[in-house]
Amino acid sequence: MRNVKRVVGFLFSVMVAASTAVADTNALPSWNDGPAKSAIIEFIQTATDKANMKFVPPAQRTAVFDNDGTLWASHPMYVQLAFALDRVKALAPQHPEWKTKQPFKAVLEGDLETVMAGGEHGLLEIVMATHAGMTTEAFSQIVLDWLATAKHPRTGRLYTEMVYQPMLELLAYLRANSFKIFIVSGGGIEFMRPWTERIYGIPPERVIGSSIKTKFELRDGKPVLVRLPEINFIDDKAGKPVGINQHIGRRPIAAFGNSDGDIEMLQYTDSGEGVHLEMLVLHDDAKREYAYTCDTKVGRLCKGLALAKQRGWQLISMKNDWARVFAFEK
Amino acid sequence: MRNVKRVVGFLFSVMVAASTAVADTNALPSWNDGPAKSAIIEFIQTATDKANMKFVPPAQRTAVFDNDGTLWASHPMYVQLAFALDRVKALAPQHPEWKTKQPFKAVLEGDLETVMAGGEHGLLEIVMATHAGMTTEAFSQIVLDWLATAKHPRTGRLYTEMVYQPMLELLAYLRANSFKIFIVSGGGIEFMRPWTERIYGIPPERVIGSSIKTKFELRDGKPVLVRLPEINFIDDKAGKPVGINQHIGRRPIAAFGNSDGDIEMLQYTDSGEGVHLEMLVLHDDAKREYAYTCDTKVGRLCKGLALAKQRGWQLISMKNDWARVFAFEK
Repeated sequence: MRNVKRVVGFLFSVMVAASTAVADTNALPSWNDGPAKSAIIEFIQTATDKANMKFVPPAQRTAVFDNDGTLWASHPMYVQLAFALDRVKALAPQHPEWKTKQPFKAVLEGDLETVMAGGEHGLLEIVMATHAGMTTEAFSQIVLDWLATAKHPRTGRLYTEMVYQPMLELLAYLRANSFKIFIVSGGGIEFMRPWTERIYGIPPERVIGSSIKTKFELRDGKPVLVRLPEINFIDDKAGKPVGINQHIGRRPIAAFGNSDGDIEMLQYTDSGEGVHLEMLVLHDDAKREYAYTCDTKVGRLCKGLALAKQRGWQLISMKNDWARVFAFEK
Repeated sequence: MRNVKRVVGFLFSVMVAASTAVADTNALPSWNDGPAKSAIIEFIQTATDKANMKFVPPAQRTAVFDNDGTLWASHPMYVQLAFALDRVKALAPQHPEWKTKQPFKAVLEGDLETVMAGGEHGLLEIVMATHAGMTTEAFSQIVLDWLATAKHPRTGRLYTEMVYQPMLELLAYLRANSFKIFIVSGGGIEFMRPWTERIYGIPPERVIGSSIKTKFELRDGKPVLVRLPEINFIDDKAGKPVGINQHIGRRPIAAFGNSDGDIEMLQYTDSGEGVHLEMLVLHDDAKREYAYTCDTKVGRLCKGLALAKQRGWQLISMKNDWARVFAFEK
């Protein structure tokens, strides 16, 4: 056994040495050659090359990814909002008062315009009515059950199929180079955790997001955590670096986003002293996905475009940089 | 290269198969044979044995450890309190008002009794005055600088030498069996993170603790997080399962504590459906460390003793189960 271990240890060190010296340029098959792909490869080569002054030890290789619009589609509406609206419909029989009470009345009537006109306050009411009151484990099951059948309105695909194939390859490429990968999303942490390991290979403890408070209690003698209708943390904008520090405790060296809500996360990463990479997914492909920048309320990218130019953050053009957007494409 | 990978893959799977079939009984050299050591070995054998009905896939092998009194000594006072008192002394020249203002006056006069008589409110004032106002990075450096020279009052050893050798072996044993190990401490998360990787092999993202709020801002043009004098989260008692859920998002299968503050964490672990292990370090060794249960305010273990008996939580008797307490012992 000891000899086997020695042999494995030796071969493994050979492999590691080989893989750090030469980057695997076949790691990103769904990426077209261009500045975005080059920036990724150059960054990983630099960070993993022991001979390079900017070499980063594996333990410090931390990459953060926004979720909505960065790893999966967020148009025409955030997936979690679609979930919340469906939950209102599912729960309506237990809430006869919703027939006359806004914003629930509008949800039940399919009047999205009125729902959105209710602004943040209205959405918060919907979230609290649909996301709180149950145990964390029960909520997790509700999310999984919904995702198993709910479909994207344009493609008719499961939402979990609406993940960007090039980003899955990027996650795998980073993972193969010993990066610790975290999701840092404005979306609900408990809405993501039930499925991120299966879809992205990212385990629950590496998911950071917005949250409501929970309370430890005994229910039927069993210790559980109950979800309370009270905001705990908003992981968006200036909240993203705060969330990163709470959960990771270390400045990332790579950050990927797609909207103005990701600016502070990119700024925080950008201010690191060693090698670092900041990228923004640009939704400029109306044919295969969607095209929007300043002209949307869902994943608006406006101030971030100017900052990207100023700071040298690399844009990822969906149209030009991605040979394929979704795995289900031919 | 592909062939090398295949060979390594094959050998590696042989090793994993071999190591899961037979537990390494030499993994805990500082543990005496007895019920505590047996409980650990039996638990790890069960969780890692694919042939066992209770086998736990590696991704779900999560173990949580309290820190003070479980991984390192917490008597005669919590290390973080010693740090805070030293910081008051170091900062006193900038705060002439402290000469007449409690609880600072008592700290400066070395009158610990008056300090403690101020209760939680007084301690909170000391913590906020010494732990807030600077960036997260500056605070981390202050902690490291202090730990580099501060000594335990009885042994004269660095605090980082006051870690329990048997627990270091337990951490290594769990790690060798693919467990994800987290610290879940009532102590400050940012007080632990700067050194837990070096001392315990536990990286910052796997440290959970109490925290104050932080704020993202630009200081001299550099994006930083500034520590605010405001409680964010208290990771103690019923807060421990809440903290576990926030950071890990999964019920642990092993929990190690030493005081009544760990009860809820053990209850939460105890209610899992598969194999699980709960243990409490019993400080019953006045000669090599300290002896206390109900009769202390620092790491009181009282209600937990009764619950341990009732629930079958395994006690770790420092006196009987540990052949060696500290690495510096002969």
